[in-house]
Amino acid sequence: MKAITVNLQSTSNRLQPQTLPTPEPAAGELLIQVHAAAVNRTDIMTRDGLSGYATNPILGVEIAGVVEKANGTSRFSPGDRVMGLVNGGGYAEYAVIPADRAIPIPEDYSFEQAAAVPEVFLTAYQTLYWLGRLQPNESVLIHAGASGVGTAAIQLAKKLSGAQVIVTAGSAEKLDFCRELGADVLIDYKKQSFDQEVLQATNGQGVDLILDFVGADYWDKNLASVKKEGRWVVIGILGGGEVEKVNLLALMTKCVQLTATVLAPRSNEYKARLTADFVRDVMPHMEQGEIKPIIDIVFPLEQALEAQQHMEENRNIGKIILKVAEQE
Amino acid sequence: MKAITVNLQSTSNRLQPQTLPTPEPAAGELLIQVHAAAVNRTDIMTRDGLSGYATNPILGVEIAGVVEKANGTSRFSPGDRVMGLVNGGGYAEYAVIPADRAIPIPEDYSFEQAAAVPEVFLTAYQTLYWLGRLQPNESVLIHAGASGVGTAAIQLAKKLSGAQVIVTAGSAEKLDFCRELGADVLIDYKKQSFDQEVLQATNGQGVDLILDFVGADYWDKNLASVKKEGRWVVIGILGGGEVEKVNLLALMTKCVQLTATVLAPRSNEYKARLTADFVRDVMPHMEQGEIKPIIDIVFPLEQALEAQQHMEENRNIGKIILKVAEQE
Repeated sequence: MKAITVNLQSTSNRLQPQTLPTPEPAAGELLIQVHAAAVNRTDIMTRDGLSGYATNPILGVEIAGVVEKANGTSRFSPGDRVMGLVNGGGYAEYAVIPADRAIPIPEDYSFEQAAAVPEVFLTAYQTLYWLGRLQPNESVLIHAGASGVGTAAIQLAKKLSGAQVIVTAGSAEKLDFCRELGADVLIDYKKQSFDQEVLQATNGQGVDLILDFVGADYWDKNLASVKKEGRWVVIGILGGGEVEKVNLLALMTKCVQLTATVLAPRSNEYKARLTADFVRDVMPHMEQGEIKPIIDIVFPLEQALEAQQHMEENRNIGKIILKVAEQE
Repeated sequence: MKAITVNLQSTSNRLQPQTLPTPEPAAGELLIQVHAAAVNRTDIMTRDGLSGYATNPILGVEIAGVVEKANGTSRFSPGDRVMGLVNGGGYAEYAVIPADRAIPIPEDYSFEQAAAVPEVFLTAYQTLYWLGRLQPNESVLIHAGASGVGTAAIQLAKKLSGAQVIVTAGSAEKLDFCRELGADVLIDYKKQSFDQEVLQATNGQGVDLILDFVGADYWDKNLASVKKEGRWVVIGILGGGEVEKVNLLALMTKCVQLTATVLAPRSNEYKARLTADFVRDVMPHMEQGEIKPIIDIVFPLEQALEAQQHMEENRNIGKIILKVAEQE
């Protein structure tokens, strides 16, 4: 099968198309004929040797496709359309996935739409609810509101929790899109000081929860924006991974809970539990069309590098999809 | 009544004995004749103008005494012996306490023993269980094992959870005492590199939970000592409040949950809920003598400054108590 692997030795193009054997599903796993995969920042970091999210030489952490073979599991049968998180191996014609992590694709979804679901919606669900413990009608500050996780988080926070959703983004076009998804307060971080806007929108209290994709550059302003006893979840370091001078006393007197997280390196058992909760709480809303995956652009699998560059240039609103060509 | 207040203007002795009116309990509060109070680092920080934990001009966040008057509550009656957290006002002959935060004193406890319970045991309980979510048989690293919170946390982690308890302290005497309380692994931080010892004691995995009283000085070693997906609760900054460089990517790839907390500024409602859970889970063990308050030394209330200095010199094993002289 065709697959995209990483060649850390290359200085020009580290993404290497290869022909590799079709993987064999272990007990409890499904073999999936992949119709679409999607691009994530964790792929880019792995490509650049900054983190290794999996032992799998093939990139890609999420897929949508059709069950080809089920090994020792009756959860799914050949022919079923499923989407879900994989431990690497997504940028390929075939991939294996633990059956307890596969999610049935809603009937009216294309494979491209389905591939736009797993990583960003599971991450948004995990960070808002498992880690961020968002309660009904609380306030949440979502940075990078037009990103894949951002567009998912806006919808979840509104539809599941009626939250006051405050977003930052870097253009009027992106902010307009966030508003369409339900965001209440729109902040252009290039023109406004977001902590002042957040305090103004929350009667000087700050937000109950921050989803932080930015890290170092926003550290002090995030600290100023979070409410006393608030939660702050760091899920990206677009603005740098090293914070200079962290004031622990300020964190203590605000009683802040800071959780730093990446989904990809979590355990199989964790991902299975997360998937189960997600299917229970979110999939009914997807099936009814109240919550929807947001696709920015679709590239053919062979243009994986271009697809990643599109993300690196922050040009996307929503997900960047890799379409796998029809096989035989 | 006699009370100890803070005079931030004084350069020699900021603790000022004063004669003040006996406070009036509001609805839902009790007036307590205080028999003993205890010293906490938050008192010292307030004395030094580094944080103001309460609007009360009188120092002190915990008391033990006898109910003198109950206003609009039938939870307790005059004559009842109670202990608990107060919003300032503990270093005095009388203090008011919300009735939902008062805890009946076990029959065989002296008032000095009772005053050694609330702040450290509630903090240990809160940080181990509410914030740290310690699970049965997990591992926990407790810095400052011989401190007030340390001695409480060792006992709770062993008796309630059968945890593997790893402690650090700065002398053989303190470590011996920690062993008597149940600690499994004893690390002299002056002679040993604690992160190496922790990794050795946990098969290279690190601990599930860290109770960190030290802050900046231990930052990198704590990060090295915490297990993947572990929890890290910052409850003190004995080793500095400003971390020079925080590596967010390392926190993310380890999926660490960091919670910074001080108990004193938490809300009344929070303290009431915490007290209720504590009474349910811990007091039966105290009544049976399986878990016990640890007193280092008792000072008369008039020597509050000496008592605080004793703490500042890290000379104590367990709690430093202020005894209020018998009244008329």
